[in-house]
Amino acid sequence: MTTLIIRGTRAAARSLKAEAMPAISIPSLLIYRHHPRRLATALSSIRHLNLSLFSHSTSPFSLCVESSAQSPAANARSGRSGSLAAPPAQLDGVQKIEVNPPKGTRDFPPEDMRLRSWLFQNFREVSQLFGFEEVDFPVLESEALFIRKAGEEIRDQLYCFEDRGNRRVALRPELTPSLARLVIQKGKSVPLPLKWFAIGQCWRYERMTRGRRREHYQWNMDIIGVPDVTAEAELISSIITFFKRIGITSLDVGFKVSSRKVLQDVLRCYSVPENMFSRVCVIIDKLEKIPIEDIKKELKSAELSEVAIEELLQVLSVKSLEKLEEKLGTDAEALADLKKLFSLAEKYGYSEWIQFDASVVRGLAYYTGIVFEGFDREGKLRAICGGGRYDKLLSTFGGDDLPACGFGFGDAVIVELLKEKGLIPELSLQVDNIVCSLDPDLQGAASSVATILREKGQTVDLVLENKPLKWVFKRAARINAGRLILVGSDEWRRGTVGVKILSSGEQYEVQVKELQ
Amino acid sequence: MTTLIIRGTRAAARSLKAEAMPAISIPSLLIYRHHPRRLATALSSIRHLNLSLFSHSTSPFSLCVESSAQSPAANARSGRSGSLAAPPAQLDGVQKIEVNPPKGTRDFPPEDMRLRSWLFQNFREVSQLFGFEEVDFPVLESEALFIRKAGEEIRDQLYCFEDRGNRRVALRPELTPSLARLVIQKGKSVPLPLKWFAIGQCWRYERMTRGRRREHYQWNMDIIGVPDVTAEAELISSIITFFKRIGITSLDVGFKVSSRKVLQDVLRCYSVPENMFSRVCVIIDKLEKIPIEDIKKELKSAELSEVAIEELLQVLSVKSLEKLEEKLGTDAEALADLKKLFSLAEKYGYSEWIQFDASVVRGLAYYTGIVFEGFDREGKLRAICGGGRYDKLLSTFGGDDLPACGFGFGDAVIVELLKEKGLIPELSLQVDNIVCSLDPDLQGAASSVATILREKGQTVDLVLENKPLKWVFKRAARINAGRLILVGSDEWRRGTVGVKILSSGEQYEVQVKELQ
Repeated sequence: MTTLIIRGTRAAARSLKAEAMPAISIPSLLIYRHHPRRLATALSSIRHLNLSLFSHSTSPFSLCVESSAQSPAANARSGRSGSLAAPPAQLDGVQKIEVNPPKGTRDFPPEDMRLRSWLFQNFREVSQLFGFEEVDFPVLESEALFIRKAGEEIRDQLYCFEDRGNRRVALRPELTPSLARLVIQKGKSVPLPLKWFAIGQCWRYERMTRGRRREHYQWNMDIIGVPDVTAEAELISSIITFFKRIGITSLDVGFKVSSRKVLQDVLRCYSVPENMFSRVCVIIDKLEKIPIEDIKKELKSAELSEVAIEELLQVLSVKSLEKLEEKLGTDAEALADLKKLFSLAEKYGYSEWIQFDASVVRGLAYYTGIVFEGFDREGKLRAICGGGRYDKLLSTFGGDDLPACGFGFGDAVIVELLKEKGLIPELSLQVDNIVCSLDPDLQGAASSVATILREKGQTVDLVLENKPLKWVFKRAARINAGRLILVGSDEWRRGTVGVKILSSGEQYEVQVKELQ
Repeated sequence: MTTLIIRGTRAAARSLKAEAMPAISIPSLLIYRHHPRRLATALSSIRHLNLSLFSHSTSPFSLCVESSAQSPAANARSGRSGSLAAPPAQLDGVQKIEVNPPKGTRDFPPEDMRLRSWLFQNFREVSQLFGFEEVDFPVLESEALFIRKAGEEIRDQLYCFEDRGNRRVALRPELTPSLARLVIQKGKSVPLPLKWFAIGQCWRYERMTRGRRREHYQWNMDIIGVPDVTAEAELISSIITFFKRIGITSLDVGFKVSSRKVLQDVLRCYSVPENMFSRVCVIIDKLEKIPIEDIKKELKSAELSEVAIEELLQVLSVKSLEKLEEKLGTDAEALADLKKLFSLAEKYGYSEWIQFDASVVRGLAYYTGIVFEGFDREGKLRAICGGGRYDKLLSTFGGDDLPACGFGFGDAVIVELLKEKGLIPELSLQVDNIVCSLDPDLQGAASSVATILREKGQTVDLVLENKPLKWVFKRAARINAGRLILVGSDEWRRGTVGVKILSSGEQYEVQVKELQ
């Protein structure tokens, strides 16, 4: 049985109507319930609108139109004959393909690609300001690289499969394990410290909720070979430099900072075995996501006594270094690290961005020391970025450990934040020239003119068809052309072309040789 | 039974020895045949060397060291106990991970990433010179998008699998079907023509041979909405602009150009059904790859008579438009297209790059008109790039057809060509400043100095540990730092830092506020 689930606010529905794009109102879809072909057609027109809303809108609302029997496989299971599942629309015997990208993935039409390029360019430039070198790894890795025993969410969400050579492979859910693999592979051939950054696509097969997709791009910066918190301080500085560049201030975003050594100290006090450490961290990370009773149950199963659990939860609620000192004593390693980090933050000039918060542990198993996450101060969004020290990761792969820390910064939450703050930049296509012949016989001449301009570094949109001038002006406006270059037969005979500056309307004739 | 297969030339072996990196000679590996752990260790050290040769060397030789029982799955099948298969090396109970990326894939350490970025930057800049907009699509698409019935090689090489939601998905082997999907989805909301480019990773599961990998990046440029060969002429011009930018001339590379309408004319003469057309094209494309008798057999199974086959092969050997005119008559549509294209090429100024060659048909099913491929004139490499017109692709997906053409340009063959020609650019890391404190207590001060410089747009490598000056100079040289900024306690008290220009050795003291 297919039912339509239409989620959205009234404002969204109004917005739908206001845009007046589809000649179909949503309730009317219900009429088609018993007309699978018409339903499919109607549905595909709505999906289209839906997508265009998502990609163009800078407002944060979300509208979903879903069929509960969406996947062909689900159809097959529920039995085709007699079911109300909509079959794919047929056009002259050709099956119409699903025009949307697979669930949870994105197309990047030009307007979205411009935003992505702008974001990546900022990631790159900031990384380079800090002297980092770009690296990359395969998006398809051996599955073994991502299988850890700590019960992380990431493992259950692995996009994994067997390739034609019977190898277990996975689309990477994160970049750090590949980085670790490459560092082990390079061995002693590279002088330390390494300062590397990467911008790579990562995959997680997870339930789709607002703003959650199955792929995202992640900016990573990592420092390998520096045991001191100077490295963490440098990494946080680079993220803040990025925020400042794109207009985000410390009123919008803050960093919660802690150290896993705080937990380690507590666990040691209660004689919890070392090998339970990462598992406990992964459990603790779920604190605000699942009920506290479930957390306690999980901690019990990780061999923690009730007293230890209570003490742990107590410590996690600490929000100042003074309180932490009372709890752990002045000698605690965690404390020394954190104090040094906050002192460096002052010198870097970003004290107002960071705060100590013992509840931050991060969800990845491999962190060993300082951990941090960036959050929006309005509390509307998930963590914007997160990172920390992972001094023991290499040995879990059979390599020699090296001090290491890094962060991951996704491309999803930051865009939501920019929208919230009205900070999405205006990024329109801009072309220096549009070149057009006024006569089909002069198409070759127009090609010559375009070539001359391009050789001088000018960007040129060459009109490739014989079109009326009205059309050409419309196109010129759409691509934000600076100049219109017209190739007419009289002018061409004189070795000239007509130039019109589109911003001012100024017009003149110029020798082709003198075109700049 | 594990045997070592060592492939490579004597020169490669000499080169191995010359680099003197591993303290192990290749034949000695055989000694370890019965010592699986030592064998594995030895093997991993060789693999390491192997990889570093591949990634740094600009010479074209290739050296492979393989174990015949490489995949764990293969081990499992051959039975573990009693077999000589090398188990993964164990370190304190931790299984050492395979340090190389999955077979056929690549890591991009900084030196390789610089080359990739340089290449992509040139792809981008050329595309933008031509007024094209960048787009992208998911690397994971629905499998149905790539399944065509013409017997293309690409279909058998699909990296496909079922996801956790039982959907058949595939890592994209090419970008054009995704482009077509997006164009159908956008429908009439976008004004034509579209001029789009993309640089995306594509996957093919194929036998590994020299220079063949299972993933590569492909630069695509496509024009949607222009029926005239002006579009093909523009696309070829952009590829040539790219070649010129990176130092490749028409002495190095040429383009073979033909039109599938030539074949269509012949097939029509012999009443071969229209629906056989793309299949015949795919068969013809194998002409230089498999024996002619096999080609003939395949053509027969595609309902071609022996006379038709002979005529087809005759026509395919034609290398001039005059000869083609004799064969097809002056009215042939193919001829008009080709003549116009060659005439435009003259106006663009790239006549010397292109030649007519009827044997070019390209291996993709969907081309309908002009087809072209770029080749190295020495004939050492596979096609560098290829493209053509595909006016009927959209309707195969159930959309309305639009005139369209485009090309794909991979990142593998071009790098081989650049190596052959000695044109790989010197791309080293360069950092404006290296900043170092002379005292651990001044680490914070050094952070302040780094921040000041970065705010002025200067790139800074900040030394994060307390290191001797000798080490700092070595690092400065390695990262090609322009200046060394030393933060010493006396100077810091005076509000100054020491500056050393590393190219000239010039040294001076400057007020921190006046640092530029």
